[in-house]
Amino acid sequence: MPEIRPIVLLTDFGTKDAYAASMKGVILNLFPQAQIVDLTHEIRPQNLTQAAFLLNMAYPYFPPSSIFVSVVDPGVGSERLIIAAKTSHGIFLAPDNGLLTLILEKEKPGELRSVTNRRFFLPKVSSTFHGRDCFAPTAAWLAKKPALFSELGPRIGHFNRLTLPSPRITRGKVRGQILYFDRFGNAFTNITRSFLNSTGLRGRTGVRVKGKSLGPLQKSYFEVPKGKAVAVFSSTDILEIAVNHGSAEKKLGLKEGLPVEIG
Amino acid sequence: MPEIRPIVLLTDFGTKDAYAASMKGVILNLFPQAQIVDLTHEIRPQNLTQAAFLLNMAYPYFPPSSIFVSVVDPGVGSERLIIAAKTSHGIFLAPDNGLLTLILEKEKPGELRSVTNRRFFLPKVSSTFHGRDCFAPTAAWLAKKPALFSELGPRIGHFNRLTLPSPRITRGKVRGQILYFDRFGNAFTNITRSFLNSTGLRGRTGVRVKGKSLGPLQKSYFEVPKGKAVAVFSSTDILEIAVNHGSAEKKLGLKEGLPVEIG
Amino acid sequence: MPEIRPIVLLTDFGTKDAYAASMKGVILNLFPQAQIVDLTHEIRPQNLTQAAFLLNMAYPYFPPSSIFVSVVDPGVGSERLIIAAKTSHGIFLAPDNGLLTLILEKEKPGELRSVTNRRFFLPKVSSTFHGRDCFAPTAAWLAKKPALFSELGPRIGHFNRLTLPSPRITRGKVRGQILYFDRFGNAFTNITRSFLNSTGLRGRTGVRVKGKSLGPLQKSYFEVPKGKAVAVFSSTDILEIAVNHGSAEKKLGLKEGLPVEIG
Repeated sequence: MPEIRPIVLLTDFGTKDAYAASMKGVILNLFPQAQIVDLTHEIRPQNLTQAAFLLNMAYPYFPPSSIFVSVVDPGVGSERLIIAAKTSHGIFLAPDNGLLTLILEKEKPGELRSVTNRRFFLPKVSSTFHGRDCFAPTAAWLAKKPALFSELGPRIGHFNRLTLPSPRITRGKVRGQILYFDRFGNAFTNITRSFLNSTGLRGRTGVRVKGKSLGPLQKSYFEVPKGKAVAVFSSTDILEIAVNHGSAEKKLGLKEGLPVEIG
Repeated sequence: MPEIRPIVLLTDFGTKDAYAASMKGVILNLFPQAQIVDLTHEIRPQNLTQAAFLLNMAYPYFPPSSIFVSVVDPGVGSERLIIAAKTSHGIFLAPDNGLLTLILEKEKPGELRSVTNRRFFLPKVSSTFHGRDCFAPTAAWLAKKPALFSELGPRIGHFNRLTLPSPRITRGKVRGQILYFDRFGNAFTNITRSFLNSTGLRGRTGVRVKGKSLGPLQKSYFEVPKGKAVAVFSSTDILEIAVNHGSAEKKLGLKEGLPVEIG
Repeated sequence: MPEIRPIVLLTDFGTKDAYAASMKGVILNLFPQAQIVDLTHEIRPQNLTQAAFLLNMAYPYFPPSSIFVSVVDPGVGSERLIIAAKTSHGIFLAPDNGLLTLILEKEKPGELRSVTNRRFFLPKVSSTFHGRDCFAPTAAWLAKKPALFSELGPRIGHFNRLTLPSPRITRGKVRGQILYFDRFGNAFTNITRSFLNSTGLRGRTGVRVKGKSLGPLQKSYFEVPKGKAVAVFSSTDILEIAVNHGSAEKKLGLKEGLPVEIG
């Protein structure tokens, strides 16, 4: 039995329209055995940072045979390239707009190509929906015959990166900011456990946000009473601000971009 | 290996309840190998026009072996029929309430039947959930044994149609209206590229909505500056009003039913 | 061909984040042939009653080979157990927080175990995301090799139950309450058809809510005019208050917990 290569979809198309489904139709039409998984289609329209962040959170848990198709594509119809990166954790297809920034910082791509070979696209390529006309059929072909990767288009040496805010060390504290809120109102920052460890700090003197101390890092939400704020490292090793049984976003009035400090 | 026949689900059931999942359970119970794809479950409750519109947008991209199960069914429990249409682009199951209007205008059905054979239904048929009790098991049987189509029930010659607004030509302009907004706030009209072509007009003198000119048709959103309105043919060849990097619905204050003019 | 055992996911993770997708990634990584079905991910955060209610509505329609993985888990990171119940209608995995109350009232478990064998978990178990680190890999192993059930951990005799409101009989009437609203605004109560039957009452004198009579039980929404309220037994045999072509929640101003009376 040939290896199964899941096709994992990440888009800002939502699920109320026919967009995500049309991509699935195209994939199944070319490769009826395809195994398609939704990462999410609910990226805020055209929000590349959010897309980069969620792809980075999820990809390590998928089979290394996976093909990750990320279509958040404000430049669709312009001259932007489509890039394909082959890594030891999967193949990544995305517009060349920085969406793969976090992935390609961590996963050295064995091959990076610009997808230009129209043989992998639908016969008629629209100017507003490359998800369906370019990305979906390319992914189907790669799931069917992985060796086609080398025929996608020319190797490239450079790709566009997002400028994401980095944490800094100032006066013995790490200063970062809030990047993302999940469904529960938990706030995710740009401070990773490995960054904190690299500074020699341990978070013992506590986490501060909006001029308020949340106390030292805890291991789980459960270690503070219900309704109380708590700072933990998330299950993906990112500094997270939560409220036990509640929403940190609402309870603490947090916003994306707010500074967070840990000492 | 037998041909795979995807079962494509379109409903107004949403995804917060157990309705769509119960349909999937029924299908898998009868045919564990079934490949089930969600077109969408987020049709506005009982909105047949929206359902007809989205089914029409998506079906051409699916394998012609697909079984499209559309359950937007305000008449459930009444005497309305269930119809099954076999076409060269797939089998379509729906209540006989007009949901298939656009499909059956384009795809001449080779066979049109009323689904009355209770052998294809669950043993106990409720009066409020035919999606689970009638549609899902019928689809599972057809995916398993396509030849059963002829046993679904009697051939019928007539089906109910929606009265959808048609574009008209008045004083050298095509006049249509807005039918649908997608997640991004793009407005879709009832003017197709083939209708415009049939009039000899080309959209050169521009598109007007709410007394405002949007300029001539463009090829993609990208051809106008960010934040500006633009008229394009959508990736499904429908006249679409968009705002580059924004929402036409909000920015231009558009509503379903508003007239749109193209010359 | 080995029996297919669908893995059915019920969570409060939503679909905008990477949580549900990460669970799917873990499952596919361990068992690429897995068939994964979403029951729903839109349980209101930490709402165990809603989770118990929807699981109970849907499970009878799935193959008895199914593995139901329910993760609504406010106590994640605490000492709460994970339980696994083997029944003739499927295997159920859930935190030991009462989520399985309704299931285990009806389905006598052949085996009830506490899942403690870390061999079934990811090598690194976080304290905030057991869905991904414990539940998903356990389900994948059970789908792959059902006989592993007996190795999950020790048999247990007791599990935690939710205290759900029960209907009562007072002065010749059954008195219950509203438990749940679906997408359409239909109100589901805690009065089942079998409970009503056991009382000898038949609902002939009608259903009352908010001091208003809705008339006798009907067979379907369709038996009252559009816009009118109606009481029916739902397709899952639960007393339901609906408005034909409308929302009972909005039209009648209903709320969870409101008393409902049937005579």
